[in-house]
Amino acid sequence: MAIRTRVTDLFGVTYPIIQAGMVWCSGHRLASAVSNAGGLGLIGAGSMKPELLAEHIRACRMETERPFGVNIPLIRGDVESLVATALDEGVRILFTSAGNPGLHVQKIKDAGAIMVHVVASVKHALKAEQVGVDAVVAEGFEAGGHNGLDEITTLCLVPQVVDAVRIPIIAAGGIADGRGMAAAMALGASGVQVGTRFAATMESSAHAAYKQAVVDAGDSATVLTLKPLTPVRLIRNRFAAEALQAERSGAAPESLRELLGSKRERRGIFEGDLEEGELEAGQSSGLVHSILPAAQVVAGMVAEFRAVAAELAMLGSGIPA
Amino acid sequence: MAIRTRVTDLFGVTYPIIQAGMVWCSGHRLASAVSNAGGLGLIGAGSMKPELLAEHIRACRMETERPFGVNIPLIRGDVESLVATALDEGVRILFTSAGNPGLHVQKIKDAGAIMVHVVASVKHALKAEQVGVDAVVAEGFEAGGHNGLDEITTLCLVPQVVDAVRIPIIAAGGIADGRGMAAAMALGASGVQVGTRFAATMESSAHAAYKQAVVDAGDSATVLTLKPLTPVRLIRNRFAAEALQAERSGAAPESLRELLGSKRERRGIFEGDLEEGELEAGQSSGLVHSILPAAQVVAGMVAEFRAVAAELAMLGSGIPA
Repeated sequence: MAIRTRVTDLFGVTYPIIQAGMVWCSGHRLASAVSNAGGLGLIGAGSMKPELLAEHIRACRMETERPFGVNIPLIRGDVESLVATALDEGVRILFTSAGNPGLHVQKIKDAGAIMVHVVASVKHALKAEQVGVDAVVAEGFEAGGHNGLDEITTLCLVPQVVDAVRIPIIAAGGIADGRGMAAAMALGASGVQVGTRFAATMESSAHAAYKQAVVDAGDSATVLTLKPLTPVRLIRNRFAAEALQAERSGAAPESLRELLGSKRERRGIFEGDLEEGELEAGQSSGLVHSILPAAQVVAGMVAEFRAVAAELAMLGSGIPA
Repeated sequence: MAIRTRVTDLFGVTYPIIQAGMVWCSGHRLASAVSNAGGLGLIGAGSMKPELLAEHIRACRMETERPFGVNIPLIRGDVESLVATALDEGVRILFTSAGNPGLHVQKIKDAGAIMVHVVASVKHALKAEQVGVDAVVAEGFEAGGHNGLDEITTLCLVPQVVDAVRIPIIAAGGIADGRGMAAAMALGASGVQVGTRFAATMESSAHAAYKQAVVDAGDSATVLTLKPLTPVRLIRNRFAAEALQAERSGAAPESLRELLGSKRERRGIFEGDLEEGELEAGQSSGLVHSILPAAQVVAGMVAEFRAVAAELAMLGSGIPA
């Protein structure tokens, strides 16, 4: 039985659960597994060159007949080429983040594709709506990876975005189970985007050591750092401690950039270097206790959502918890 | 019709809505108004000497026959005297925060009173349960005023505390309406503690200018600062900008303490100095659009909670949103 919202109608999927595009985690295997389970899988182009993205799109189409999409970070130097590749390969759902959606919306809409942009404030949600995107992801402070400057949490951001725009809203940041999904929908979201929980699935292309680090993480395991560059949430390790220390002692952006160096994300997430790599993950890591097949994550979220919704309704009707 | 949970059973109230103890906001007028409306009002002892606390308790008892409580920050130098005053005056519900609950639990339990402690991490929730408190408030990063060190948001903290302890859990941080209340209960909380929304009510003893600043605040209006001392969330103003600037340039705790000086909270919240005062408030300020009677806040939250719960249940049953 479907859970039907404006978001499932927009994408043509069964459940309003979207798997976030995540560097080094979400290739065709993860995206197709989520789409086959009734959610919306996204191929994360963040760690791919255009040719590799094309290969993943083709592979994904072999693995599922259901809708899937591509996530493209707009800060990429080759963003034009990535967008063109996705459209040329027939992708009709594009998620964009970290940049100005207005520069790309015309081309995407002209191709008949749906465009969804990730925002971290009401201001950016309004701007995205104004330029013509079809939906926004409202992503809170607890989310893993790159993060907004205003540090607004999902619980506070989602209802304010709901009150401000008319297009459908997808909540992101801190959602790893059916409880979080029900909470997000209670706030007015028409769907949820889930990253960290899917990063630690069988089909995620992340290194086994990274997945285990997510499983081992407790509630206080992640931290938002590198704020003078681009704020990023990651699991605390030697690299994170150095970055925090530099930040606290007032280091200039240049010296932080030097400390960061290059390929830290690859080292942490894909190569499994738990000390010197960037282990991007959300606060919801503390809610992830095992590495599961993606389909089991989707089914578990849906079942728990239904149970929680029924319990809340009983409470609302005066039946004791 | 009541909304009955473990928390309403514990306190003997009609709705699982607790008004947070807030310095310079929550005297007897606010506490009795919330209790008369079916929630649990708390007199915030944070800005009171023992004699003044006793006066407020007596006045509150004149104004309501329903249960009310007192909130005592355990970092106060005269904490023993405040606890003794509350118990001597017959208060049987004590909320404590910012300190070690184990030092006070015996005396409070011996007096036959209920003790609830505010925590910001799973570790502190487990410790509070172990020493024998009756319930915990799990308070997230988005909350106003003094804040935890781990920056865990309400959405991520509450379900992890729910999974870790057996005592009832009250969610706090970011909750200002029935949507937030439903979200918190979906996460497994048995009640909510609400600060900022009640700080901007008619019965709040805060200055009119402070209440208006909460109403005027947008989603990005607050910031967590003074982290090397005690992290505190406040509305951005001249003082907040100076504190942030000092923090970013790596200022030592001593110079931050000097910058803070004394009576900043009083200046901002009670005297309404919008530039040099400390305007403690949560991220949910962005959800507060008018100064209302406290009873209307309670009734509005309850009605919205019921509506949201019913909608979620329909979604869960396959009925489109």
